[in-house]
Amino acid sequence: MVLTSAPPTLPMPRLLSTIPTNKSISCCVGINYGCSQSKPNSIDFQAKVFPKENVITSPKQDDKTVTPAEKIPQHLNWESRKFHWVYDTFGGKLGQEGLVFQQNFSIRSYDLGPDGKATIGCLMERLLETSVQHCRSLGLYAGGLGSTPEMTKRGLVWVLCKLQTVVEKYPSWAEVIQIDTWTGASGNNGLFRDWIVRDYSTGQILIRATGLLMLMHMKTRKFSKGTAEITDELRSALMDSDPLIDINNAKLRRLDIDARNYFQTSVAKPGWSDLDVNQHVSSAKYIDWVFKSIPFSVLETHELSSMTLEYRSECRRDSAVQSLTAVARDGTGDSTHNQGVEFDHLLRLETGSEVLRARTVWKPICDGFLSTLKIPATNGCT
Amino acid sequence: MVLTSAPPTLPMPRLLSTIPTNKSISCCVGINYGCSQSKPNSIDFQAKVFPKENVITSPKQDDKTVTPAEKIPQHLNWESRKFHWVYDTFGGKLGQEGLVFQQNFSIRSYDLGPDGKATIGCLMERLLETSVQHCRSLGLYAGGLGSTPEMTKRGLVWVLCKLQTVVEKYPSWAEVIQIDTWTGASGNNGLFRDWIVRDYSTGQILIRATGLLMLMHMKTRKFSKGTAEITDELRSALMDSDPLIDINNAKLRRLDIDARNYFQTSVAKPGWSDLDVNQHVSSAKYIDWVFKSIPFSVLETHELSSMTLEYRSECRRDSAVQSLTAVARDGTGDSTHNQGVEFDHLLRLETGSEVLRARTVWKPICDGFLSTLKIPATNGCT
Repeated sequence: MVLTSAPPTLPMPRLLSTIPTNKSISCCVGINYGCSQSKPNSIDFQAKVFPKENVITSPKQDDKTVTPAEKIPQHLNWESRKFHWVYDTFGGKLGQEGLVFQQNFSIRSYDLGPDGKATIGCLMERLLETSVQHCRSLGLYAGGLGSTPEMTKRGLVWVLCKLQTVVEKYPSWAEVIQIDTWTGASGNNGLFRDWIVRDYSTGQILIRATGLLMLMHMKTRKFSKGTAEITDELRSALMDSDPLIDINNAKLRRLDIDARNYFQTSVAKPGWSDLDVNQHVSSAKYIDWVFKSIPFSVLETHELSSMTLEYRSECRRDSAVQSLTAVARDGTGDSTHNQGVEFDHLLRLETGSEVLRARTVWKPICDGFLSTLKIPATNGCT
Repeated sequence: MVLTSAPPTLPMPRLLSTIPTNKSISCCVGINYGCSQSKPNSIDFQAKVFPKENVITSPKQDDKTVTPAEKIPQHLNWESRKFHWVYDTFGGKLGQEGLVFQQNFSIRSYDLGPDGKATIGCLMERLLETSVQHCRSLGLYAGGLGSTPEMTKRGLVWVLCKLQTVVEKYPSWAEVIQIDTWTGASGNNGLFRDWIVRDYSTGQILIRATGLLMLMHMKTRKFSKGTAEITDELRSALMDSDPLIDINNAKLRRLDIDARNYFQTSVAKPGWSDLDVNQHVSSAKYIDWVFKSIPFSVLETHELSSMTLEYRSECRRDSAVQSLTAVARDGTGDSTHNQGVEFDHLLRLETGSEVLRARTVWKPICDGFLSTLKIPATNGCT
């Protein structure tokens, strides 16, 4: 599990969740739609309000009013998925904010990696920023990110346990990406958060991601069940949909340490610059650490196409961490059947405790050609 | 010296410079300052055009038309400095772009450090981004950032040799900063670039910075003199002013290695995530490395108020680097005369070559009270 880079006035956790008892709420699809006038304190994001005339409801049996689909701009057509956003059950507290939060980001020179594209770390940070802004727009952040009064009273916070990201295409310098994010129930005690990242100018989907969150007790640091009161407080903030990615089925192997066929870094403590406002290691740093045990020869010739992270324990500033990478699939095969290169990763503390399990899938950079990966012999060190 | 995170299509260097022969060009102060309508490809920056009616010229002898000072918004009054921006000598190539480039940035959750304020690394990245965008707006980037056709023909690029930053106040989450940047001549063969960072909503100056750039030959990697042709090409892109900070007088001590009274890190190679599009170590990484040899006890209780960086050699992905920090002034003294804590820093390669000299000045975080620094005994390792 990992706690988020919440604003300094907020305690710890990351996203918004609940344990809903009733998901049969009327829903709608929001639209947007060009750029609104920037305000001084919101230069490059706009929390969208979705007016009724632009709404299309999900095709439910009890649903009589469906706005024509052609009212939805092409790049918000969400492919064939049926997204429906709650709008008619808003309580006074939530006001007229939409349940899908949208934010735009320009890709800057410092967001680029050696390949001239935005790095996965940069993109992950922007996903998490939209979560923070979404919770803020909903007023659910006073006692911790996504926290309701009842949660605060019980000392509960949300923690991110798993995250899967699928990248179709990386944006380049000076391009603008548009991120939509929303949240919904996952089982009885969890939440999922979805993100879709698009190229602002074309509407092309660049990235899909889903995160899984659980309730944790602040003092005991153990997972907790929710209550009916928390459910009631969050009911109208949830999408009535399945997550974009079935993240529960993404079971990660434990890297086989005994086999000793992995690359590894030396054990290192985080620096001051690696810490977030909660004195935890920042999310981007986890990815940096994972990358540090992947051979340069792979990073130079391949592009990350999918990444699954499973957070297993907190990592603080005095945590000495080691990164391990083992080859799970070497990418051999012809161009038709080659599904890319796959790695298993492990971040572990000096004590042996697991901090993070991860799986990454890589495809060759050269267009239309899946080359055979040249992975150097594992030498125990990168 | 250090080369910049230029866009992927650009070769290497960082900023814009020239060796001007004639600085007696008529100038103006630009105004704008609400928010313009955002465009899809420029969500959160606007290159400002400075209309004549909003112009105030510098008080030169031959200058008869001075627009009343009250036309300048308070937060652009630049204190008592006389800034004058070229507008009436624009050539066709430069079009109507102003010489002072302005860009706004929102401070995000991932920009914050453990103290809940934007990190100096984050702020430095934004300064450099404005340089990139400024050069782009002037059309001076085809052969390298700030490059003219004559420079490209001669294989010359601009490299940043020295940078000084003075921080009055760090911005916090969700605040918007506004950065103005411009460039001018420094001696016969150099350029300075200035930046002023303001709080967008109040106009309060947060940061001042000046960089010094020199011409370098791409192949020989040696400094070079300019030519009259280059001067002519760049003449109208330069401000006729002194730099904000007299950077030439900021002579940095060489850290006394023989004295052995310093903190040091182990030698480490950069990871993939530390590299920019030119396969160099990114600017922010230099600062991370400097910070890594400063004791946590200082970083927890003090805030960086001034930083001077002197880039001495390039640092690439196979460079194994060590960071050293020595106490130059320990900050003892009463609250009136205590000028803060001062460190000398050195980044050096495993071979012993200097990569970076730096000096940093720190003030205690507690308001209105300059505490005595508790620096642990130097143990050769942080």
